[in-house]
Amino acid sequence: MINKLVGKIQKMNAPIVVGLDPMMKFIPEQITKKAFAEYGETLEGAAEAIWQYNKGIVDAIYDLVPAVKPQIAMYEQFGIPGLVAFKKTVDYCKEKDMVVIGDIKRGDIGSTSEAYAVGHLGKVQVGQNAFYGFDEDFVTVNPYLGSDGVNPFVKVCKEEKKGIFVLVKTSNPSSGEFQDQLIDGKPLYEIVGEKVAAWGADCMGDSYSYVGAVVGATYPEQGKLLRKVMPKSFILVPGYGAQGGKGADLVHFFNEDGLGAIINSSRGIIAAYQQEKYATFGGANYADASRQAVLDMREDIAQALASK
Amino acid sequence: MINKLVGKIQKMNAPIVVGLDPMMKFIPEQITKKAFAEYGETLEGAAEAIWQYNKGIVDAIYDLVPAVKPQIAMYEQFGIPGLVAFKKTVDYCKEKDMVVIGDIKRGDIGSTSEAYAVGHLGKVQVGQNAFYGFDEDFVTVNPYLGSDGVNPFVKVCKEEKKGIFVLVKTSNPSSGEFQDQLIDGKPLYEIVGEKVAAWGADCMGDSYSYVGAVVGATYPEQGKLLRKVMPKSFILVPGYGAQGGKGADLVHFFNEDGLGAIINSSRGIIAAYQQEKYATFGGANYADASRQAVLDMREDIAQALASK
Repeated sequence: MINKLVGKIQKMNAPIVVGLDPMMKFIPEQITKKAFAEYGETLEGAAEAIWQYNKGIVDAIYDLVPAVKPQIAMYEQFGIPGLVAFKKTVDYCKEKDMVVIGDIKRGDIGSTSEAYAVGHLGKVQVGQNAFYGFDEDFVTVNPYLGSDGVNPFVKVCKEEKKGIFVLVKTSNPSSGEFQDQLIDGKPLYEIVGEKVAAWGADCMGDSYSYVGAVVGATYPEQGKLLRKVMPKSFILVPGYGAQGGKGADLVHFFNEDGLGAIINSSRGIIAAYQQEKYATFGGANYADASRQAVLDMREDIAQALASK
Repeated sequence: MINKLVGKIQKMNAPIVVGLDPMMKFIPEQITKKAFAEYGETLEGAAEAIWQYNKGIVDAIYDLVPAVKPQIAMYEQFGIPGLVAFKKTVDYCKEKDMVVIGDIKRGDIGSTSEAYAVGHLGKVQVGQNAFYGFDEDFVTVNPYLGSDGVNPFVKVCKEEKKGIFVLVKTSNPSSGEFQDQLIDGKPLYEIVGEKVAAWGADCMGDSYSYVGAVVGATYPEQGKLLRKVMPKSFILVPGYGAQGGKGADLVHFFNEDGLGAIINSSRGIIAAYQQEKYATFGGANYADASRQAVLDMREDIAQALASK
């Protein structure tokens, strides 16, 4: 799957992943109205609105963007109906041949991590049959519990030729509270980065490993260091746009081959029509606004990489 | 909710939580057979088997045990039908007046952590209405992303008078990989423990905080230290029984008031009938075996505390 991701990035010339992190306040009125008319102001109504909203965006961008990253929390908050919308979104994006990165940030120990890995990347056994539960292509993984928590994911990645992105240095303001703590002069995120390189060493695709990392765009200096610590790991970079990361900050996350990073934007794309810059599109044409925002983002990144 | 938990522990004289972490291999044949006959060897069939299995255990122990801790991964691996079984289990345990600790180990940033908090502890707004998604009483939270990831949970805990248990020192063999790293001579888990005490300081119940911690029974010395670092935090202690933690190891996790800790056992209770000790019960009476295992565990802990 890492080969597919790399191939699509090269073909589309777009190291971009769009975060499908729907919030009710992003969804244009015509969609919400219709969903509520059908299902009422219920969890099912919210889930229907989210699904229709996502579908519109995906239809407008799937030829430009290699991957999507649905954030499961935004669906899980609507209980079971929300998770049904998550699953429909995953399936639809895969139909459109997009790579799906489930932003689930799971992590546990032993048989429990195995259950998450099986449920999101692999197949679960029921009697004589095996079933995919959510069936994403990649998922994000929290490393706090150590190798016991990550290895079950790596095992399933090998079986299924899928991948993970391990949280190393997250984009949020307080990420340093624990991640920046110095251990013999070395920050914790660097130690985690070294582990990512080690976990990924024996499950390599053609040029990159199945095991990638998450490093926030808001921390370009740390990105520079981590790029060297994990040369064969793809870096998933959140924090561009709404969280303050700029195109020029991104160059450090890429290797000399122009690859090695994929930049995420969520509300900057999916709620583009609510920004002043794209306001003329209006809610009725929200998906066209998202398409234009993708084109602008692609240009911003290309310019930054050209001047590297 | 922390007051309810403390009250029930005192009344039942049982600082015990039973981990409802079902695996297909634990479920007695008569249950699986019936579920598969009705739904086939499908995700729905597995979910039905899990739900019936759980219900049998809960019916057999709810008068002895203050709390249950369903591990959501074990349900999530069966996709949407699995999560429906999770929700049914949560609701049923609450009907039986048990305190429900959702072992979800979620953790993200800002609005995303808020979505998890809202979905599992609070209410989500849909138009004019508000709905509980999963509605547990407590959840477990991963602290790797720092205060940004934990504060949204604390906010919802205050609104709903519910609680969290933050991962501090987990029970697994490799938990030390990151958690034991020394920062100026102090291990990371201690720094996380100090944060737990700080996060919990302004949301106190009568004697303990809404913000608790997870510390593995397999690390009694660390438990002793952390007990002092977080005097007002309840400690959820996994790793008793199957993972190797013994009654005598547990005394360090309790305060002088005989409170402050709740010990988890999962397969030691729910799959008791598969142990030699309880084999005479047989699969047909698996729930009675679970009840006996709870009585034995209660006795083991009481003896350990008496000889403290």
